[in-house]
Amino acid sequence: MPKPPSFTARTPGDPRPRMIAIDWGTTSLRGVRIDAQGQISERRALPQGILQVAPGGFADAFAQHFGDWLAEDPQLCLLSGMVGSRQGWQEAPYCPCPADFSALCQQLLWLDLPQGVPTAIVPGMSSLAQSQVDAVHGVPDVMRGEEIQIIGALQLMGSRDGLLLLPGTHSKWVQAQSSSITGFKTFMTGELFALLAQHSILGKTLDSSAALDEAAFIQGLERAQSPDTLSHLLFGTRALSLFGALDPAQSASYLSGLLIGQELRTMPTAAGSRVAVIGSSTLVQRYSLALHHVGCEAVAFGDEATWAGHQAIYDHLTQTTVSTPQSLPPQP
Amino acid sequence: MPKPPSFTARTPGDPRPRMIAIDWGTTSLRGVRIDAQGQISERRALPQGILQVAPGGFADAFAQHFGDWLAEDPQLCLLSGMVGSRQGWQEAPYCPCPADFSALCQQLLWLDLPQGVPTAIVPGMSSLAQSQVDAVHGVPDVMRGEEIQIIGALQLMGSRDGLLLLPGTHSKWVQAQSSSITGFKTFMTGELFALLAQHSILGKTLDSSAALDEAAFIQGLERAQSPDTLSHLLFGTRALSLFGALDPAQSASYLSGLLIGQELRTMPTAAGSRVAVIGSSTLVQRYSLALHHVGCEAVAFGDEATWAGHQAIYDHLTQTTVSTPQSLPPQP
Repeated sequence: MPKPPSFTARTPGDPRPRMIAIDWGTTSLRGVRIDAQGQISERRALPQGILQVAPGGFADAFAQHFGDWLAEDPQLCLLSGMVGSRQGWQEAPYCPCPADFSALCQQLLWLDLPQGVPTAIVPGMSSLAQSQVDAVHGVPDVMRGEEIQIIGALQLMGSRDGLLLLPGTHSKWVQAQSSSITGFKTFMTGELFALLAQHSILGKTLDSSAALDEAAFIQGLERAQSPDTLSHLLFGTRALSLFGALDPAQSASYLSGLLIGQELRTMPTAAGSRVAVIGSSTLVQRYSLALHHVGCEAVAFGDEATWAGHQAIYDHLTQTTVSTPQSLPPQP
Repeated sequence: MPKPPSFTARTPGDPRPRMIAIDWGTTSLRGVRIDAQGQISERRALPQGILQVAPGGFADAFAQHFGDWLAEDPQLCLLSGMVGSRQGWQEAPYCPCPADFSALCQQLLWLDLPQGVPTAIVPGMSSLAQSQVDAVHGVPDVMRGEEIQIIGALQLMGSRDGLLLLPGTHSKWVQAQSSSITGFKTFMTGELFALLAQHSILGKTLDSSAALDEAAFIQGLERAQSPDTLSHLLFGTRALSLFGALDPAQSASYLSGLLIGQELRTMPTAAGSRVAVIGSSTLVQRYSLALHHVGCEAVAFGDEATWAGHQAIYDHLTQTTVSTPQSLPPQP
């Protein structure tokens, strides 16, 4: 395996890029070129997720889409996301929690690229080490791609501690303490919503394309605080429709509220808590609504968290100072 | 609407049938002919669920499959199941809980059949009345077809009280007190298992056709006692596979254990409890294993519960004595 390179940060006047940052997920490939000043100088997004690449074809696919950037002599190319999974370019073993930023950097998986650019895959993280795994009391959790967003959001907040939420197909709630990721939990919220809307009996009385009905969403959120299991609560959506208490648009919002409400029920979302929410604007908006409803503050981040995370690794590798403030700054 | 008929029970020597009992579900049509002695003299099962019948075509479809029995001058024809739903022959409004046997009989929906045989649809039941419905604190639950099995199982046990379980696509847990159905809960266990195995990421590392792995099933059961929500616990199945802790056959059993374990977690299944389990032998076996694991006793019933329920309604309408013992009989 190639060794990590040793280099210093490029001087701001250098015309060559500092780095190429890539997020290569299951269904999409996104990249940015970052110049010597640390500014994003170009962005690319392609529908070429890892599922679209044949085994063994990753180096060629990457050169096809980013060869011109690699030819510009960047100091570093970093790849995050499912590209480091068993189905990706090369498997980057999960970095177990608790893990700080240095641990993650030490576990970067360096690749040998023909273009000669130092290139590494950011490892995913696991909530437990392999030796702790047990099907009842030691069930592990895993993420790939979210870790870089978490690092980025903490950097952007200038924070060492916090509760972070990455909503999506599989929502992740992450605890950070003293700049370490200490634990996290995955909820299959987005996938369950899609499955239920498309394939279950709930779909018969549900319009998943309708705009959010806030009142129904909040009703679902509140109902989800019940100690009943989700497999029972879900059926309530159907029964309420049969009784005319929810129309199809309301049913979709109610179902969304149920699923998201179950996340809130089991996470530390006491009134007054602050949660960093990282994701697409639609999801961030919906989760922010939920968090506000229970009295929490939501701090929103989008793509910038991913690229800030990549830059933080560059900074670490080039040993420039990474700011590590002691606590969250006061809010404006 | 036709009025309920008044008649007395046929004498045992009468060559004509006492009744035709029909269970007409979403995907199947089953019926038995019961002779004047109260014995089942013939059975039929057809893959002609209500979804296979065009609106307005129920009387013809029924005559096609059971016309010869109707011509034999039975005293009564009873239909249970989804045939009484909005998509069925005619909608029989839900009978709200708590409801005893008389209440259910009073709400039979009588049909006007050309053959002149007194024919009624058994109503489904709802956990709440329409006026009590509220999307947060008054979420209703519904069943159709299970109510007749519950009545039948109570008759067969000679019991007025108990906890009854009807596993399936939508598992129902039912409380009976003093011969009344006082409440029930539905769990989307079977449907969720099928959705997750066929359409979710869990399906990638899961063999749903494999035989039950008891150890993995029990691990799932135990894991499901966690206060975490199902949408988190489900993802554990995936993570355990990634860590090599579950193979595809074990994953299927573990997932089944998780879903069934969540039912047990929220129902009164203290050690020493007795639960009547009514359903197909495969499901009854699996739930019995789960109940035994937590120290409960499972009393198994199959089809006979359905037909005993139909007979109990005949007995009630003909005013013969329906046995109403005070408690569960001692076990052999």
